Amino acid sequence: VAQDRLAEKTFLAGLGIETAPFRAVDTLADLEAGLAEIGRPAVLKTRRFGYDGKGQAKIASPDDIGPAFAAMNGAPAILEGWVPFAREISVLTARGLDGRIVTFDVPENEHRDHILKYSRVPAAIEAATATAARAIGATVATALDHVGVIAVELFLVESAEGERLVANEIAPRVHNSGHWTESACLVSQFEMHMRAVAGLPLADPYRHSDVEMENLIGDDARDPARLLAEDGASLHLYGKTEIRPGRKMGHINRLQPRARPPA
Amino acid sequence: VAQDRLAEKTFLAGLGIETAPFRAVDTLADLEAGLAEIGRPAVLKTRRFGYDGKGQAKIASPDDIGPAFAAMNGAPAILEGWVPFAREISVLTARGLDGRIVTFDVPENEHRDHILKYSRVPAAIEAATATAARAIGATVATALDHVGVIAVELFLVESAEGERLVANEIAPRVHNSGHWTESACLVSQFEMHMRAVAGLPLADPYRHSDVEMENLIGDDARDPARLLAEDGASLHLYGKTEIRPGRKMGHINRLQPRARPPA
Repeated sequence: VAQDRLAEKTFLAGLGIETAPFRAVDTLADLEAGLAEIGRPAVLKTRRFGYDGKGQAKIASPDDIGPAFAAMNGAPAILEGWVPFAREISVLTARGLDGRIVTFDVPENEHRDHILKYSRVPAAIEAATATAARAIGATVATALDHVGVIAVELFLVESAEGERLVANEIAPRVHNSGHWTESACLVSQFEMHMRAVAGLPLADPYRHSDVEMENLIGDDARDPARLLAEDGASLHLYGKTEIRPGRKMGHINRLQPRARPPA
Repeated sequence: VAQDRLAEKTFLAGLGIETAPFRAVDTLADLEAGLAEIGRPAVLKTRRFGYDGKGQAKIASPDDIGPAFAAMNGAPAILEGWVPFAREISVLTARGLDGRIVTFDVPENEHRDHILKYSRVPAAIEAATATAARAIGATVATALDHVGVIAVELFLVESAEGERLVANEIAPRVHNSGHWTESACLVSQFEMHMRAVAGLPLADPYRHSDVEMENLIGDDARDPARLLAEDGASLHLYGKTEIRPGRKMGHINRLQPRARPPA
């Protein structure tokens, strides 16, 4: 379900969870018919193997149609309508072998060049929106009979009626937007996942501190000693031997205690 | 210095840090002369290789003298006067290659059968006592030119003049009474030690939550699933294959956030 964007969106829609409008695209005729229904701007994506913006082409004008279709290289694709989102959030749900569910607090995510750059908790969202996000996480985890941590990426759309959530992607695993749990929760998403798949009791997902996670991408990881010198920050490098542009080399969690006493 | 109780107490006394009164004991005559000066109750200890109360004999009455001396098995010993302490605390100091020092918050320690059972932070001590403990830690670390984490165990004596600290032992390493830092600080004593010995910047030792560490001794570790089911607790087992009475099998950290919102 999570490996194929068409299956994923069909699954979400079947659960009554709003997604971007979408159409399957195998031919240029499919693409043109889809655009006539969905309108522009839209995004054409390969159904499989895409991540961090790879395998995606935006279609803003008629001139973009041919190049976008060519960019799919003949792979099965999906056309998605553009979601005018105000911000991006995600929900990190853990489900145990016994079906019990716990949910971490909802992070707000900021991308740069299609790559996650920051996750911040708490997110600047209404309490009802956080509750709705948790419900989506629980619905998806249960419908998939998932065991372990699962993330659902959500767009937040603001309108006159208030905030509305549009599901974007399912990641059936620990997720980059949950790395802050290492520093701001007693039990991280990683331990939570291990407890779940081992049939052990899930932990209390309580978050003790406000936190910002910054992904260290490429040269961001060039000077670890400088990063370690930052007060209130915890550095996690992944041990990758070579720095490359756009490569996730590690992350840094910045703890922002709600009421920090003077040093 | 830390391996020989006589060298240790001589070193501390030389720094102007109060210790229990002590005398070197190699012969029964030394022991009797020492008792005449120090008084009873007193404790006879082997100078080296003792831990968790091993190699110690309390002398409360004259009848205890012979058996206590015999218990040393001819090993060099030290006679220590009894300290009428109200509670035990410790100070966890980290010192970098550059001589910079940071100190974790002071835990209060509770022993059972001579083995550490609980460390709780914050300790129920006066602010001036915590400051004095930090100063002792810094003085000891600097005098030893120590690099890494070092613990000093302290007795707290209450009197009409207020609280007073009496140094007991130096442990030039990460220490059992600092295991709570894994859960209540952004950077644990273990990472702090590694930063120090690697010449990397020391971290902010800020503690985000109140915490209790309980040592799991022997059968305490018999049922990990029960321990994992406790909300607000984090379990650390050491992977020892055999449970034995008195053996430290792991510990559990219980986080007690100062202002926890309702679930």
